[in-house]
Amino acid sequence: MARLVLKFGGTSVGDTERIKNVARKVKQEVDAGHQVAVVVSAMSGVTNQLVEYCRSIAKIYDAREYDAVVASGEQVTSGLLAIALQELGVPARSWQGWQIPIITDDVHAKARIERIDTTEIVRRMEESGEVAVCAGFQGVSLRNRISTLGRGGSDTSAVALAAALKADRCDIYTDVDGVYTTDPRIVTKARKIPRITYEEMLEMASLGAKVLQTRSVEMAMKHRVRVQVLSTFEPAPGSDYPGTLVVDEDEIVEQELVSGIAYSRDEAKITLVGVADHPGVAARIFGPLTDAAINVDMIVQNVSEDGKTTDMTFTVGKTDLDRAVQVLEKAKEELNFRKLSSDANVVKVSVIGVGMRSHAGVAQRMFKALADRGINIQVISTSEIKVSVLIAEDYTELALRALHTAYGLDKA
Amino acid sequence: MARLVLKFGGTSVGDTERIKNVARKVKQEVDAGHQVAVVVSAMSGVTNQLVEYCRSIAKIYDAREYDAVVASGEQVTSGLLAIALQELGVPARSWQGWQIPIITDDVHAKARIERIDTTEIVRRMEESGEVAVCAGFQGVSLRNRISTLGRGGSDTSAVALAAALKADRCDIYTDVDGVYTTDPRIVTKARKIPRITYEEMLEMASLGAKVLQTRSVEMAMKHRVRVQVLSTFEPAPGSDYPGTLVVDEDEIVEQELVSGIAYSRDEAKITLVGVADHPGVAARIFGPLTDAAINVDMIVQNVSEDGKTTDMTFTVGKTDLDRAVQVLEKAKEELNFRKLSSDANVVKVSVIGVGMRSHAGVAQRMFKALADRGINIQVISTSEIKVSVLIAEDYTELALRALHTAYGLDKA
Repeated sequence: MARLVLKFGGTSVGDTERIKNVARKVKQEVDAGHQVAVVVSAMSGVTNQLVEYCRSIAKIYDAREYDAVVASGEQVTSGLLAIALQELGVPARSWQGWQIPIITDDVHAKARIERIDTTEIVRRMEESGEVAVCAGFQGVSLRNRISTLGRGGSDTSAVALAAALKADRCDIYTDVDGVYTTDPRIVTKARKIPRITYEEMLEMASLGAKVLQTRSVEMAMKHRVRVQVLSTFEPAPGSDYPGTLVVDEDEIVEQELVSGIAYSRDEAKITLVGVADHPGVAARIFGPLTDAAINVDMIVQNVSEDGKTTDMTFTVGKTDLDRAVQVLEKAKEELNFRKLSSDANVVKVSVIGVGMRSHAGVAQRMFKALADRGINIQVISTSEIKVSVLIAEDYTELALRALHTAYGLDKA
Repeated sequence: MARLVLKFGGTSVGDTERIKNVARKVKQEVDAGHQVAVVVSAMSGVTNQLVEYCRSIAKIYDAREYDAVVASGEQVTSGLLAIALQELGVPARSWQGWQIPIITDDVHAKARIERIDTTEIVRRMEESGEVAVCAGFQGVSLRNRISTLGRGGSDTSAVALAAALKADRCDIYTDVDGVYTTDPRIVTKARKIPRITYEEMLEMASLGAKVLQTRSVEMAMKHRVRVQVLSTFEPAPGSDYPGTLVVDEDEIVEQELVSGIAYSRDEAKITLVGVADHPGVAARIFGPLTDAAINVDMIVQNVSEDGKTTDMTFTVGKTDLDRAVQVLEKAKEELNFRKLSSDANVVKVSVIGVGMRSHAGVAQRMFKALADRGINIQVISTSEIKVSVLIAEDYTELALRALHTAYGLDKA
């Protein structure tokens, strides 16, 4: 007997037939003797529709009211799944964020969970095997207002609930059957990763792999929640862990040097040419961007040729590019640069692996593989377990395939 | 300065443009210095969609989960209207049933309101003129479960809130501009009724006029809430009371003999021929129907010709007809009747007016008007302030026009 949290995303509950299919998956776990809590997203498309309603009424809207509107999508699926489970003879009850309650702070539209009271859910689980069907994505603030956790927040709901319930595992059912060494739509030789560490998964998520919300991985890592990513639509192929299991490093016996290769097209590059090179220049440049709530990611400051001026290159989110350029041009005199150039046609490609902590030459292999294909590296950034490079977007597929082969990730 | 509750139905909030229009109406009342609470229905069509989801998953479903699903429609419109009001500079906040709270019993899908705590709403109204935008149709049970009040329940939410707030008036905005002497789509000479008594409105609502939910009128009568029915889509034509005001009898100076003529196509007729005529026969017949939760409305027992058998005619809801016939045929031997005949092609036409309490001859005028047109009356039932007759459905329009003229209701 184990205690499980199962999470089903928007495509998994996209219509009533699919909700019935989810109910059958849940019943399998109940029939196997497990205690089960379920977390559901809204039907696919519903949240977008609700967001669109808000936007069509006001350009800038009260996040508290936005939360009340968009949280309704998960309310619908939680009730429907409870009905579908009861129809299969499985005792079930829906739970909204305020009913459990899942208490959050009051940073609406991107609230953080502060605590979850699982007393009643556990009592019912233990007394009658009742399945708690919890609305994902939502909570309630201490001011008794509906709050939401940000897009993709249902993953976080599920992991947080698993932590609060001390669940043996949190299964994230989605429309892919696991985490891959890279995007299999681009690299046909991509392999499913059976086990990946929290640290690697965190880098994968934040560097572009869309399979799990970054915050949910942070939370899983913090609370040591075993997370499994698997497909709603394929039957489990006779294995206990048919998807990808996200676990502690010491649970992985044979660690690859590099586990996966992620990419993100969400960034854009800005270069300030001829910036006066003296102490404090970086702070002066990034101050106005911070004030405008624009995050800067990769940063490179070139060595100055004449000792007086330098070039500064950095990346911002593609959606922030226009605003960033505006902010910088406005401060041009104060910042004292000669020219600003920007480029949205870039992609960030990252190789990730805890193995590189103990092995030299990982970055070198990346640079060589790209150079061999004539791919120019524009910016580099590294951390303990990843190397990221910015390259021209046109080379995305070529670079992914080259790196996938170079690190020995191609399937046999 | 008055305190008002404004209620907007599904067509009034049918899309985001209409929600903006509603916000402008609300703003007018706020600008006039009034304290305002608003009650909203779901966007038209949404509740039907949600009900359909439940039905497509299970034929018989848990009413608690049905309530969680269908209550989400009002949640969306309450949040959106709050956003629209804020966009116009009007302070506003959405309130779900559980937030206010509106406490109901736990008869899910047709819950009754037990009490409403208006403390916080009133505090905000008085301190900052904040408009409370309340989700109609829903409440919360003492077991902390979302409950709903039954179809059309938002009218009841509005009247109950008006009673709890001791509001000066409850304005029900809808897609017609008031209560008419009869259905204006059938009788072109129908007039809008400027003032109508609670008692008459109650009869009108329960006898077929669809403009207000019957329970909301009962509640208005009980708590003496002044209710106004008016149109969302027409500008108020320079009058304080542009719609129909439902009030105490003593507020109406010149009372008409008959205020209105209602009709309902929702009933069907059953006749049991040759029933053994002895004491207790009625109880024996209606017992099985009551057991099957089938309501019987009009009842006529014919004088028995031979002193031994009689014919019994009564009406049931059209949707219950097949079931009622089944129940009775099954008990044929026990009930001891010769033959059962049924007819779904009937209509109940009712003339309503508190004036008939003090005037004789009102029913007589009805019978004569119908007889003059060759319309055969099948069943008659009366109360203190109404006379209803069952006639063949084909004569509906003819009967309505004849009666409208006979009681002097035609507009000049």
